[in-house]
Amino acid sequence: MKARVFVSLKSTVLDPQGQTVRAALNGLGYPGISDVRQGKFFDIAIAGGVAREQARKDVETIAHEVLANPVIEEYRVEILD
Amino acid sequence: MKARVFVSLKSTVLDPQGQTVRAALNGLGYPGISDVRQGKFFDIAIAGGVAREQARKDVETIAHEVLANPVIEEYRVEILD
Repeated sequence: MKARVFVSLKSTVLDPQGQTVRAALNGLGYPGISDVRQGKFFDIAIAGGVAREQARKDVETIAHEVLANPVIEEYRVEILD
Repeated sequence: MKARVFVSLKSTVLDPQGQTVRAALNGLGYPGISDVRQGKFFDIAIAGGVAREQARKDVETIAHEVLANPVIEEYRVEILD
């Protein structure tokens, strides 16, 4: 089974990395780019013996406690195949 | 208009960051996690005056030339709303 966790800064938190990318793109001839925000994702492979519901529960816990910092980041979990 | 670009290491390229996360999760009591690979994504806002086809073309170019390193990374572009 595979899961994917998306982690991004909360929309109220400044994203200087994204702003730098936006400024660079504007300077490179793409004035139409009005905003860029950067995030990260984790592709997680789960061993065959784990039940789907248990996998979702585990990945939600992992996302909340390990992969994201809930103070400034939000996350979304997808369970694939 | 919004676009999202996903950038990840090619599957043939080692991902030490993902391996470190996997080892940490195994040690934290999740032995069922067999692999973790990390990637990044960019949420790009495009100004209203740009046509959809032009936006897709621009974002494809941006992904290939700026956001990803095509030697070791692959990318995927999604155009939203």
